[in-house]
Amino acid sequence: MVDVAARFAEIVGADRLLTGERVSEDYAHDESLTCEPRKPAYVAKPATAEEVSALLVAAAEHSVPVTARGSGSGLSGAARPREDGLLISFERMNAVLEIDTGNQVAVVQPGVTLAELDERTAAAGLAYTVYPGELSASVGGTVGTNAGGMRAVKYGVTRHNVLGLQAVLPTGEIIRTGGKTSKISTGYDLTQLIIGSEGTLALATEIIVKLHPRLPHAATVLAPFGDLTQVMEAVPRILASGLTPNILEYIDNLTMAAITYNEKLSLGVPDSVRDAAQAYLVVGLENRDADRLEGDVERTGELLGELGAADVYVLEGGSARKLIEAREKAFWTAKAAGADDVIDVVVPRTEMPGFLAKVRELATAAEAGAVGCGHAGDGNVHLGIFCKDNEKRQRLLHDIFAAGMACGGAISGEHGIGTAKLSHFLDLEDPAKVALMRRLKQAFDPTDTLNPGVLFG
Amino acid sequence: MVDVAARFAEIVGADRLLTGERVSEDYAHDESLTCEPRKPAYVAKPATAEEVSALLVAAAEHSVPVTARGSGSGLSGAARPREDGLLISFERMNAVLEIDTGNQVAVVQPGVTLAELDERTAAAGLAYTVYPGELSASVGGTVGTNAGGMRAVKYGVTRHNVLGLQAVLPTGEIIRTGGKTSKISTGYDLTQLIIGSEGTLALATEIIVKLHPRLPHAATVLAPFGDLTQVMEAVPRILASGLTPNILEYIDNLTMAAITYNEKLSLGVPDSVRDAAQAYLVVGLENRDADRLEGDVERTGELLGELGAADVYVLEGGSARKLIEAREKAFWTAKAAGADDVIDVVVPRTEMPGFLAKVRELATAAEAGAVGCGHAGDGNVHLGIFCKDNEKRQRLLHDIFAAGMACGGAISGEHGIGTAKLSHFLDLEDPAKVALMRRLKQAFDPTDTLNPGVLFG
Repeated sequence: MVDVAARFAEIVGADRLLTGERVSEDYAHDESLTCEPRKPAYVAKPATAEEVSALLVAAAEHSVPVTARGSGSGLSGAARPREDGLLISFERMNAVLEIDTGNQVAVVQPGVTLAELDERTAAAGLAYTVYPGELSASVGGTVGTNAGGMRAVKYGVTRHNVLGLQAVLPTGEIIRTGGKTSKISTGYDLTQLIIGSEGTLALATEIIVKLHPRLPHAATVLAPFGDLTQVMEAVPRILASGLTPNILEYIDNLTMAAITYNEKLSLGVPDSVRDAAQAYLVVGLENRDADRLEGDVERTGELLGELGAADVYVLEGGSARKLIEAREKAFWTAKAAGADDVIDVVVPRTEMPGFLAKVRELATAAEAGAVGCGHAGDGNVHLGIFCKDNEKRQRLLHDIFAAGMACGGAISGEHGIGTAKLSHFLDLEDPAKVALMRRLKQAFDPTDTLNPGVLFG
Repeated sequence: MVDVAARFAEIVGADRLLTGERVSEDYAHDESLTCEPRKPAYVAKPATAEEVSALLVAAAEHSVPVTARGSGSGLSGAARPREDGLLISFERMNAVLEIDTGNQVAVVQPGVTLAELDERTAAAGLAYTVYPGELSASVGGTVGTNAGGMRAVKYGVTRHNVLGLQAVLPTGEIIRTGGKTSKISTGYDLTQLIIGSEGTLALATEIIVKLHPRLPHAATVLAPFGDLTQVMEAVPRILASGLTPNILEYIDNLTMAAITYNEKLSLGVPDSVRDAAQAYLVVGLENRDADRLEGDVERTGELLGELGAADVYVLEGGSARKLIEAREKAFWTAKAAGADDVIDVVVPRTEMPGFLAKVRELATAAEAGAVGCGHAGDGNVHLGIFCKDNEKRQRLLHDIFAAGMACGGAISGEHGIGTAKLSHFLDLEDPAKVALMRRLKQAFDPTDTLNPGVLFG
């Protein structure tokens, strides 16, 4: 063990390798509510792809499992290291290498945070349009988990916005996939396979992301509805109208109460309307032209009225921003409220009413709570689960996941499987697909060095 | 051999299995200009995924290589069968199974043509926005090759518009990947891996595609430029403006002359302007609102003027449609003009001027011709290569592909590698990536049954 540490230290420099007491608690966990922290034996902070490569080769030789970590803001335990393992922290590889306005791409190292990338792209009049709730997330982490967020309804998730990678294979080989182009038909798409693989196939050391013009005019429309089903039924109609909302979120009444209370947020909704509302729809609009935006807001208001909204509120800049921020913090609100788990099943959006009815039924039968909000345009339902008893909660989760899959959906839309949902994944997923995925894992990582225990147990 | 034929016939029915003289010439080739036709030993026309599965199992047992065929409109020889092989033709699996307006998706069998899907979606006010030149192409074929086309600049290529598959693995297992949702983070993305794999990994038997609202108002703007470099430099500026063209094509003067002559197309460009033009930019715009479209057309015209266009023509419905159709037929024009090959290198769009200058230089040195047009917004350069001598032409192609890769691009943007560009792919691609792709192929297809010889030789 001393030998291995010495070898790692030689690669990254002694002060960039932590062991024993020097490994802080921070490195022991991500933000999953259910994964017990585990301190790794080693934390290395490489500065280059070559150092990452050398670490992987040394780790494979010594059978040391390797977990990658960006900001540790994941929700599924995929960045939680093994006790006998090496945690590769990308905190030093945090440079925005290039903002290329002609090709509308940025080239970044994995440790760059979304907040920093947002600032840098804003200066060029552009935007990286993947905004999961947590802007302290690293770009590398969002690649690992295929992060989504509220703007995905218009711009897609990470998968749709990453054009290329420099990646280190577990064998130590450094490859480049994709490029500064949005189309390539030259062999298998390794970029897409690595995205969402939760650190099990390869480690991204450079990421080429697609940027969009940053549209200067934005508005937020809030509509309370008498029942959740109406909200869900409104969603496809809005998307079919030809309006292209960049946000289309539902928030149930309990979640809205919690987030407005937590954030001391006043939305101008009269008490009588609020008391009758079962759920809210939040519609974000943006345009390069102020007049067009105004026209879209008007049309959205009319449409929401036709679709049964109790009223329609166009939120002013400040309160709109606060509502979106509060919605982005819904995870923290749920955590503060004592949620025992947070999940993000995805179903076809027309299946949301049926799926949510089933969830209520299952939660009631289990004497548990399941409340939430979600990316309604994408059918991505975020639920805080309140159920202290672990065994009971796991049964409930199993039934909720199975119900989502029965609707044609999947266990997770954007959080990933990690270790938190692993047993359910292995239990519910088609064994032929899991076996194929295992063979793919083996093709990348014959020594099972990268994140063993994640995805496959 | 008789045994195998009997087994195949048992699976699909005797009248659905062709051998010997019953195999027509059509099955021997796709539209590649350089791949010699090869008649397969067997052609089977399955009607179900189960029949496809049984065929694959039987073929693997008897070491019969299998090639899949949609409409045979591919340009790289990936649908060209082996002489000792089984060609699975999807002509009977040609049903549009569902147009789901709520989720804005269609579920189709692989043999459905893009023309039929276009008609069916139009009736629902929706569109499948992947329009490669050839609308007789099958959806299954476009999945195999990750087809692109002119609308990709706004809507992305096949990869961005296929949400899920039912696919048969070479082992005979039938799996479902993805679904009617645009985001999933639950294990590796098998959908994306199969797309663009040119029939080497799995055969799609059902395809879920994303639909968009069909926008009712469209316009086409044509701008002649004094030189090609100016055209190329205009492209990033248009995309940065916040206009969202659904077509952004360049056409060089020789190609424009050929397609307007071939199609007897009059665009209203005076002789003096035409004679001075080295290249044209075609900008397509669409909107749900007629006034907004008009505003966009005006803004586009101004912008093109600022960017150096000699003049700007807003084409009327009829001539606009004809120009787009003529551009879509550019492959046939090149073929009719005696082109010896047609290629589609992709480079970052800002690299197009440099890349095209390099191509001119290489072609001149080789005493060959290289003229074309392309998806300028995507950096996807389509070139007709005129060079009769095969050896000389292969050297030229090698140098052109190498130049494209040196610009950060790839050999093919949307046509694929197939067998036509195989030797160049193996020669120029990073060996570590090719080796990894081979291991992935092995993970899917341990018996090397699906399209051996394609991608890997």
